[in-house]
Amino acid sequence: MDWPTLNISTGQGEVGDWTLRAVARPPLSHHDPAFVEIFARTLGLLQRVYQTEYDVVTLQGEAVLGLEAAAASLVAPGDRVLNLVSGPYGAWYAGYIRRAGGEVVELRVPYNEAIDPEDVRRALRADPRIKYLSVVHVETPSGTVNPVREIGRVAREHGVLTIVDTVSGLGGTLLSPEEWGIDVAIAAPQKCLGGLPGLALLSVSPAAWAAMERRPAPLRGSYLSLLDWKDAWLAERRFPYTPSVNLVYALETTLERALDVGIEQLAARHALVARACRAGVRALGLRPWPARDAIAATAVTAVAVPQGLSDGQVRGHLRARYGVMMSGASGDLAGRVLLLGHMGEAAHPAALVAALAMLERTLADLGRPVALGAGVGAALAELAGWGAVGDVPRS
Amino acid sequence: MDWPTLNISTGQGEVGDWTLRAVARPPLSHHDPAFVEIFARTLGLLQRVYQTEYDVVTLQGEAVLGLEAAAASLVAPGDRVLNLVSGPYGAWYAGYIRRAGGEVVELRVPYNEAIDPEDVRRALRADPRIKYLSVVHVETPSGTVNPVREIGRVAREHGVLTIVDTVSGLGGTLLSPEEWGIDVAIAAPQKCLGGLPGLALLSVSPAAWAAMERRPAPLRGSYLSLLDWKDAWLAERRFPYTPSVNLVYALETTLERALDVGIEQLAARHALVARACRAGVRALGLRPWPARDAIAATAVTAVAVPQGLSDGQVRGHLRARYGVMMSGASGDLAGRVLLLGHMGEAAHPAALVAALAMLERTLADLGRPVALGAGVGAALAELAGWGAVGDVPRS
Amino acid sequence: MDWPTLNISTGQGEVGDWTLRAVARPPLSHHDPAFVEIFARTLGLLQRVYQTEYDVVTLQGEAVLGLEAAAASLVAPGDRVLNLVSGPYGAWYAGYIRRAGGEVVELRVPYNEAIDPEDVRRALRADPRIKYLSVVHVETPSGTVNPVREIGRVAREHGVLTIVDTVSGLGGTLLSPEEWGIDVAIAAPQKCLGGLPGLALLSVSPAAWAAMERRPAPLRGSYLSLLDWKDAWLAERRFPYTPSVNLVYALETTLERALDVGIEQLAARHALVARACRAGVRALGLRPWPARDAIAATAVTAVAVPQGLSDGQVRGHLRARYGVMMSGASGDLAGRVLLLGHMGEAAHPAALVAALAMLERTLADLGRPVALGAGVGAALAELAGWGAVGDVPRS
Amino acid sequence: MDWPTLNISTGQGEVGDWTLRAVARPPLSHHDPAFVEIFARTLGLLQRVYQTEYDVVTLQGEAVLGLEAAAASLVAPGDRVLNLVSGPYGAWYAGYIRRAGGEVVELRVPYNEAIDPEDVRRALRADPRIKYLSVVHVETPSGTVNPVREIGRVAREHGVLTIVDTVSGLGGTLLSPEEWGIDVAIAAPQKCLGGLPGLALLSVSPAAWAAMERRPAPLRGSYLSLLDWKDAWLAERRFPYTPSVNLVYALETTLERALDVGIEQLAARHALVARACRAGVRALGLRPWPARDAIAATAVTAVAVPQGLSDGQVRGHLRARYGVMMSGASGDLAGRVLLLGHMGEAAHPAALVAALAMLERTLADLGRPVALGAGVGAALAELAGWGAVGDVPRS
Repeated sequence: MDWPTLNISTGQGEVGDWTLRAVARPPLSHHDPAFVEIFARTLGLLQRVYQTEYDVVTLQGEAVLGLEAAAASLVAPGDRVLNLVSGPYGAWYAGYIRRAGGEVVELRVPYNEAIDPEDVRRALRADPRIKYLSVVHVETPSGTVNPVREIGRVAREHGVLTIVDTVSGLGGTLLSPEEWGIDVAIAAPQKCLGGLPGLALLSVSPAAWAAMERRPAPLRGSYLSLLDWKDAWLAERRFPYTPSVNLVYALETTLERALDVGIEQLAARHALVARACRAGVRALGLRPWPARDAIAATAVTAVAVPQGLSDGQVRGHLRARYGVMMSGASGDLAGRVLLLGHMGEAAHPAALVAALAMLERTLADLGRPVALGAGVGAALAELAGWGAVGDVPRS
Repeated sequence: MDWPTLNISTGQGEVGDWTLRAVARPPLSHHDPAFVEIFARTLGLLQRVYQTEYDVVTLQGEAVLGLEAAAASLVAPGDRVLNLVSGPYGAWYAGYIRRAGGEVVELRVPYNEAIDPEDVRRALRADPRIKYLSVVHVETPSGTVNPVREIGRVAREHGVLTIVDTVSGLGGTLLSPEEWGIDVAIAAPQKCLGGLPGLALLSVSPAAWAAMERRPAPLRGSYLSLLDWKDAWLAERRFPYTPSVNLVYALETTLERALDVGIEQLAARHALVARACRAGVRALGLRPWPARDAIAATAVTAVAVPQGLSDGQVRGHLRARYGVMMSGASGDLAGRVLLLGHMGEAAHPAALVAALAMLERTLADLGRPVALGAGVGAALAELAGWGAVGDVPRS
Repeated sequence: MDWPTLNISTGQGEVGDWTLRAVARPPLSHHDPAFVEIFARTLGLLQRVYQTEYDVVTLQGEAVLGLEAAAASLVAPGDRVLNLVSGPYGAWYAGYIRRAGGEVVELRVPYNEAIDPEDVRRALRADPRIKYLSVVHVETPSGTVNPVREIGRVAREHGVLTIVDTVSGLGGTLLSPEEWGIDVAIAAPQKCLGGLPGLALLSVSPAAWAAMERRPAPLRGSYLSLLDWKDAWLAERRFPYTPSVNLVYALETTLERALDVGIEQLAARHALVARACRAGVRALGLRPWPARDAIAATAVTAVAVPQGLSDGQVRGHLRARYGVMMSGASGDLAGRVLLLGHMGEAAHPAALVAALAMLERTLADLGRPVALGAGVGAALAELAGWGAVGDVPRS
Repeated sequence: MDWPTLNISTGQGEVGDWTLRAVARPPLSHHDPAFVEIFARTLGLLQRVYQTEYDVVTLQGEAVLGLEAAAASLVAPGDRVLNLVSGPYGAWYAGYIRRAGGEVVELRVPYNEAIDPEDVRRALRADPRIKYLSVVHVETPSGTVNPVREIGRVAREHGVLTIVDTVSGLGGTLLSPEEWGIDVAIAAPQKCLGGLPGLALLSVSPAAWAAMERRPAPLRGSYLSLLDWKDAWLAERRFPYTPSVNLVYALETTLERALDVGIEQLAARHALVARACRAGVRALGLRPWPARDAIAATAVTAVAVPQGLSDGQVRGHLRARYGVMMSGASGDLAGRVLLLGHMGEAAHPAALVAALAMLERTLADLGRPVALGAGVGAALAELAGWGAVGDVPRS
């Protein structure tokens, strides 16, 4: 089976060769002092990437482990949680809350829209028993971003702790756990940071730790437990179980790279490339899925599937003929949107124009009238600003 | 911080360079057809390594995730579970059963002993409400092996489903899920298979699947769920969430290597090297920890810490001066035994004699009278049999 | 110092990740039977890539070592050699002939032209003492190709042995040592094959071997000797000295890849991408350097430096701002042409359009009027034919 | 074909994984500013490893290229060269001198002896026309070392320039081009530095440069030319031709490692391990080949093939059964000595004892009476001194 030439999927983007060399270092015993040093250093880098003084934790599984662990560690039976839904991932989160025994209060908008903080305020006012709020920062399949800063402020005013899924946010946009009122943030290496999947990256506020410890029967001795990492690693530099040693090496290098580029710079690159991508797809006669540009994600550009073609036709042809791997949406949006990822190392003009050009060629191959070069040209016009953000360190 | 020259730890042994190159392949999207093909092929290899026709599943986290998931997926509130305890890992398992709501019935032997199948028979007869039995195949910190074959037969006679922790067993000893009556087996790549940590490898019997689906509120939509993988992967070749793509590449190569060597051959190597190791440590005046050789593990040789020296002294000197990373025991055995791992690529004469020689030098450095060369000499005498098991393919 | 994002240089193009993993295998002793097997297999692959039954040899140094070795091994003092010059590399070759003691007869055309086989015929008729003929197949800095097939036929008619520099030819165009009358061909892994620099790849006809052995004081015991490899490797499967073990690993994988794609397919890809590149640069108002398309190389598109801009400005801006590494010409052409390489893994639509788009953006940044997207659009129109050549195996 | 588990050959020893990751970096164009920076840095490291202020040069081929290039660049037709011969490599060098047109004056000792500086003095006094002196520092197949320091002093007193083959010397013993009077030194990465084969590492004195430039028809425009590198790289930071980019990456890392360990420390390790190796083989009843320990090499221990066994039997069994690759000698010594390499990363107690133990087991397997453990025991006694030299940095 042939491998892709260009990976603009939203599950996993292009990765720098430095990360691939790092993951190939021989696995140390996790009791080895050299590994303890690397792990400590990696969490220090993660704090800097999160731009936080809060504790950070990495769980040894994919981002969804972090999402479930946040609910499992915080929510006790009977706790009421306001779950904000603007896309499939928001909808999915209710399941974790319920499994933990929580009661879900849902606030929902159409999947091409963003949550309005004023609606959050109304919901919290209406139900003073709400204890937690969960929200997806960047809804990948919708290609939209929620105003987490404002939502967090409202939650804090009401004494409500927040769980923020910033899996497709961290690295691609700026955020600040302290200033934004984010009590538990969950991210992943394989999205805007350009790393490898298999770890969950969390930031935890003191208030969130306190809530976990204060609840009846705090969750300990489980793969879903955040407290296990507090007790073992944060308190004693031990591990509750064997970590994914090689993925930790990769994470260290991925985070170093992000910090070399600069967190502000990295976010600015994603924003510029996303803007150029929207210009490109519009010039091809395609329609961005989000209701308006102000709520469009920087990590991914969601585009309505063009009339007369199916999702599978476009993506299948791109992959089979040009080696370009593009994602489709899942859940309620399946078959309705195409997702052009531009995360991590793919947040670069060269990758963007290659993707757009191959999309142009694909649309033409599939019989749709296209002015070849139009999409790339429109994107290039926007990319005039690259000089301000695009200095490319790489070692 | 210096890295070790030789890793004979029990958390993670020496890994072949082929696995380290495999883990460094660029990460595919898990929706990419090339990845789906690799994943399917890898599970096919895992079936052959398990020598089973049962379904096999790989969870995207360390072996303990598999251990917890087995309990969480099978055990419903009120279910009674006979938990066999011959070492720290057996003792630890009770926690997973209780978290799932199960009632634990414990059968315990001293930590240098093995479970007697007749005791199991008595326990099952005494309590017909027992539904599941959990047992550790190889107790790493004790360096002992339990008679899982006989225990499984007894359980089957009583209609009891078994959960077998063979994390330090698979690859180092032969086992057969079908013939031995193992309903859920849990293993890991980083022990006797010589791979990387971060995945749990399970074999699941039809009876176990049926029990999971039949129980009230089957566990779905969770990182702890085995059914999610049945529904998504086994039924539809989809993933319930993003797998650890690079670790899957590594696993594929690790399993290929094990099959190239041959499962019988690989087990025979571990057995021979373990026998040579015991001869070596005895010649140095050290005492193997297990009560008798018949129950000594093939993956690891547990040795009583010699009088007058501490665990930390020996291991610290070995690591700091000679770059040899050796594990100590955890839990109740901490400080009482030294663990010489000889797993995966370290199940080879060259690694064994290097470890023994450095241990000799260390004991002498620490002031203990040692006839230098005695341990290696005794091990070499046993290693005369290597010709029958030691053909070394490597590509 | 930042590394490039896209390498379209002509010294070294983009390399597949498979080759980078292969080069990282641990170095075997060259006396190790496993290495002898790999080396033999690699030369077998090289024969298939050359599509020849002639002996093939790999020298342990860059392509120029092969070029010099061919002259040093064949040409004895006083031998007369017709050296064809259509670019800087042809001109350079006279030095190797003279160092070997040969007398150079030169046939020269302007550096944007190709040699006319009829001129060769006239030259050979005019001087019956001419014993050898040397010609560059693809003149990289000129972006031109010489009609080696017809030249070889003429040489054979006159009993003249040929030395053909196909460093930028092999892989990018078809050739046949036997049918074309090529007595010594010299190529390299790092051009159209998409490999690593450091080895010279030669094909040697029986007539060439005979000439080397027949000449006074045959060259033996030297890094420049081809006969050393005949005596040691071809005759006895020994090495005259330590080969570049890791580069041999890389070569093996590079050649496997080329054969997986297919030699005809690989040449067709280069031809299509080159045609699309010429269309693209013309649409940007740039002028291909070769006098006519029929003699344009498939490995590289040479373009006249646009008026008002310098070579250094364009390449410097491309590299610094967009991470695209483009070569300039050397020798007499320095500063007059830009070289867009599309070799090996860069002979793909995605790489070509990325390069063209970044060139468009660069020209605009430098103040030149450019209809953004025009170059990419023209290239995409030509790339409609990719379906016939572009199946992308990769493992 | 199976690969070895332990490589104690003298052609290529064990390499650190850091070097294998470095060689796998993507190849830059050699015109890329990032590569120019790396190359300059690497030569700076080489100067520090050579502990010299002289210019250093790396040729893009194996060490023998450096040996031949030194003769080809320095020696003009008619120049008289005193060639010192204490082993096969010394004998071989006469060929390079003669090819360059030089007249060879030979000073020879038996191949288990070292050159006496007083003999050199006599030879130089006897023939004032001698212009150059060539000597092998460490004769690998003989396992002997020549007193280059004293020989160099004598040469300098007579105004004779020296060419020193320190291929198996640099890293394993200290040397100083300036103090020892070495005009051209030639070394390689793959011996005591623990690197990869394919590059020649030279140090060149101002007097040697002057001699090359002053001679009639200085050698330029050839793969054998040292002046090409002076003119292009040293003067203008250009390359005369494409360097072996990936091997340069590997060299950079190999040299960094050597400097991290420390040049004095690295030499002391080789010396200690060599002493322990001699003790080990003697305890096994084997006889070191060198006439006395004072002239034994630190890089390799040459041992007389034990009576009743052949070279091929011992090495073949070691390789086939235990995966240990050991070299035999070449040339006049073929079949008479076994070579235990302990170079680079193999200059460590763990590797030494593994090699000795496998040799013990092999001798026993082949029917020779051996007190198993005796060799390792004797070596371990000597290795008591490791604490002073063995600190193991590795990153």
